[in-house]
Amino acid sequence: MNPQETVEAFVAAWNRRDLDAVYAMMADDVVWENVPLGVAEGIGAVRAMMDGFPPIEACDWTIHAIAANGGTVLTERTDGFTLAGGRQAKVRVMGVFEIGADGRIAAWRDYFDSAEFQREFGG
Amino acid sequence: MNPQETVEAFVAAWNRRDLDAVYAMMADDVVWENVPLGVAEGIGAVRAMMDGFPPIEACDWTIHAIAANGGTVLTERTDGFTLAGGRQAKVRVMGVFEIGADGRIAAWRDYFDSAEFQREFGG
Repeated sequence: MNPQETVEAFVAAWNRRDLDAVYAMMADDVVWENVPLGVAEGIGAVRAMMDGFPPIEACDWTIHAIAANGGTVLTERTDGFTLAGGRQAKVRVMGVFEIGADGRIAAWRDYFDSAEFQREFGG
Repeated sequence: MNPQETVEAFVAAWNRRDLDAVYAMMADDVVWENVPLGVAEGIGAVRAMMDGFPPIEACDWTIHAIAANGGTVLTERTDGFTLAGGRQAKVRVMGVFEIGADGRIAAWRDYFDSAEFQREFGG
């Protein structure tokens, strides 16, 4: 897989709700930053952050635009979620992924509006 | 200029504070969306939106990552501003640009945190 295909497969793993695959595609020292909210450094911190999220029944993330430059892949997406009880949440986001030489995700930074996030998830 | 070079030149025009060049690089029917804030449709609406912004003495926008896929160019940036009186503002942003067949910017969507924007510009 080239870097763009890696990111497409990563989004597909989220959409299958296959967290084992999601974690396996991240480097042990991955840095995942939700820019307005905070950063998780290392796969252990990523797992802890995920455990602290509201329960999610399903993901429906759509990639509107994607482009790669070497190992760096930039995306424009709408990330849809089905929350507990079937409520829908949707966040407009752009994210950048840095793919390491081993083909795993070394860094992931998502840019979105924290107010939109709170509105969608907090309701 | 290819689409990536067009976007690099556009950012350079902002950094020279050359608004004539900025406007000339946008299509007449450009759609500029500051995703959490709103959208300006058409060059007249863009000019009106710019006129409504706080006075800006200088721009210092840094491109951290850029990649193109056909006419679509995605960027990760930090947009620095010098406001009236010399105060500094800085917003972390990702933006996508769609370059038309005529080489001008047909669409521009910037994703950032509205709270960060208010904090930086509102103080």
